[in-house]
Amino acid sequence: MTSEGLSYAAAGVDIAAYERALERVRPLLAATAGPEVAAGVGPFAGLYRLPSGGYLAASADGVGTKIKVAIALGRHRGIGVDLVNHCVNDIATTRARPLFLLDYFATGSLQEEVFGEVVAGLAEACQAAGCALLGGETAEMPGLYALGDYDLAGFIVGLVAEPDVPDPASVRAGDLLLGLPSSGLHTNGFSLVRKVFKEFPPELLEPHRSYLGELGTLRWKTAAHVTGGGIPGNLPRALPPGLGYRLDRSAWQTPQIFREIQERGRVSDEEMLGTFNMGIGMVLVMEPAAVPPGALVIGEVVAG
Amino acid sequence: MTSEGLSYAAAGVDIAAYERALERVRPLLAATAGPEVAAGVGPFAGLYRLPSGGYLAASADGVGTKIKVAIALGRHRGIGVDLVNHCVNDIATTRARPLFLLDYFATGSLQEEVFGEVVAGLAEACQAAGCALLGGETAEMPGLYALGDYDLAGFIVGLVAEPDVPDPASVRAGDLLLGLPSSGLHTNGFSLVRKVFKEFPPELLEPHRSYLGELGTLRWKTAAHVTGGGIPGNLPRALPPGLGYRLDRSAWQTPQIFREIQERGRVSDEEMLGTFNMGIGMVLVMEPAAVPPGALVIGEVVAG
Repeated sequence: MTSEGLSYAAAGVDIAAYERALERVRPLLAATAGPEVAAGVGPFAGLYRLPSGGYLAASADGVGTKIKVAIALGRHRGIGVDLVNHCVNDIATTRARPLFLLDYFATGSLQEEVFGEVVAGLAEACQAAGCALLGGETAEMPGLYALGDYDLAGFIVGLVAEPDVPDPASVRAGDLLLGLPSSGLHTNGFSLVRKVFKEFPPELLEPHRSYLGELGTLRWKTAAHVTGGGIPGNLPRALPPGLGYRLDRSAWQTPQIFREIQERGRVSDEEMLGTFNMGIGMVLVMEPAAVPPGALVIGEVVAG
Repeated sequence: MTSEGLSYAAAGVDIAAYERALERVRPLLAATAGPEVAAGVGPFAGLYRLPSGGYLAASADGVGTKIKVAIALGRHRGIGVDLVNHCVNDIATTRARPLFLLDYFATGSLQEEVFGEVVAGLAEACQAAGCALLGGETAEMPGLYALGDYDLAGFIVGLVAEPDVPDPASVRAGDLLLGLPSSGLHTNGFSLVRKVFKEFPPELLEPHRSYLGELGTLRWKTAAHVTGGGIPGNLPRALPPGLGYRLDRSAWQTPQIFREIQERGRVSDEEMLGTFNMGIGMVLVMEPAAVPPGALVIGEVVAG
């Protein structure tokens, strides 16, 4: 890596400031949580115990500046798919079955065509996940969004029976890490990507895939959705204190699009792995006997 | 009204385009809805039937361009309160008790102080409503938001027993309309407000109040949360087909802030009533015998 190589911080995203801000508000959040809120059960979704038993799993997500690439290319349907599958995958890490999703669409001046495409994508991915698109908020905010710009957020609620909630304490040294392939960049790293390309290749917009099917059939202990922060930023959240992991970077081939970004931006290997999914969108922690033949093992759980 | 008087459309919000866009996506939404989704039960929240019985009530909301006024005045805590109470009131129209809320906070570059104040407001209002602030998404999106700007959306989930869900079919001609006072502008009409004032009076930021207490103690049939579109845009949603309403505009005094906006913008009476809450933040439809002495009756339900 040369000194001119791009980093995510240089691209305008200050992760340290974000972490400091989160530390600061954590006690405020904790003060609102009654005994119904499950603490420390995986950070990809919040869990709330229903009076009738079982947990609601909930997650809020956006699609980040991938929206700017969609706007530049005039292709918006995939953005809707991205949002839903990001949300679905987040709560799938708790083994929750999705119930419903609500969206928030904000823009300066509503363009019917764009809005229609985004909602078509939302509806398509919701149907595929068996999830009702229950409602949403559409806001026209002249002066906050530039002409043609919009933002999109999603909020999903799922249901999981109490015995099915994954327990990081069940993870042991020697457990294997199964990697599930991504379909592309999903929704992460776009602030950096936008600095690297003069013209955006359309494959940047390949929608975030859903892992609902695989997570429903495989036998796994915990799962890490590889989003912002890449594998190093997300996999530790699926492990108990006292255990770490060893990643075998030679176990899978980095897809071409990531190699192109790295080359164009002269980005270090470490920065790439901490920003992009690098071809692995979900990591499952499994006991060795549960790993099916031919599965992609990308590392193992180790002590410390 | 003179021809130079301001209207909401002239302020940059095209409600007709929004209605057209909604009509267009409605079939897409319907296609995702299974039998668990309750249709036609009041449009302030979506209702989803749980396998164990009872309904989850959910709503997504933003705070609109009130955010721009908060940014101009450098006061952000009330924006968090606004968002929570807007959400709480929406699902309270279904008699749901709030369970939890998630927020979406998006900005160009995270300012820790601003974010901290907004979350403090969210937490304060959540605690007051007995609602867990279960999580959220914080997004840094350089290039989408101008320096110092941010957007905020909220997603709330509540729980209501099936027999408690309000039924518009129970409303009869002769039922009375009870008006619950607003605390100010709440979160509506700010695109127009921003054109009217050169310097913003701080009372514009008075937070949206919660009606949770009153809705829990009074005996009402249906409720209309007076948000975008004012009383004419929201009250019909609490009435069954075939019934209308007669409003007695002399029953309550319009608070000074609305009179000032009207005068400065030379806005017509009709435009004011269709944009602002004009001092009434919630309307309850009640049978005459249920109206407590001294309550503010602002009209009645009539045939046609």
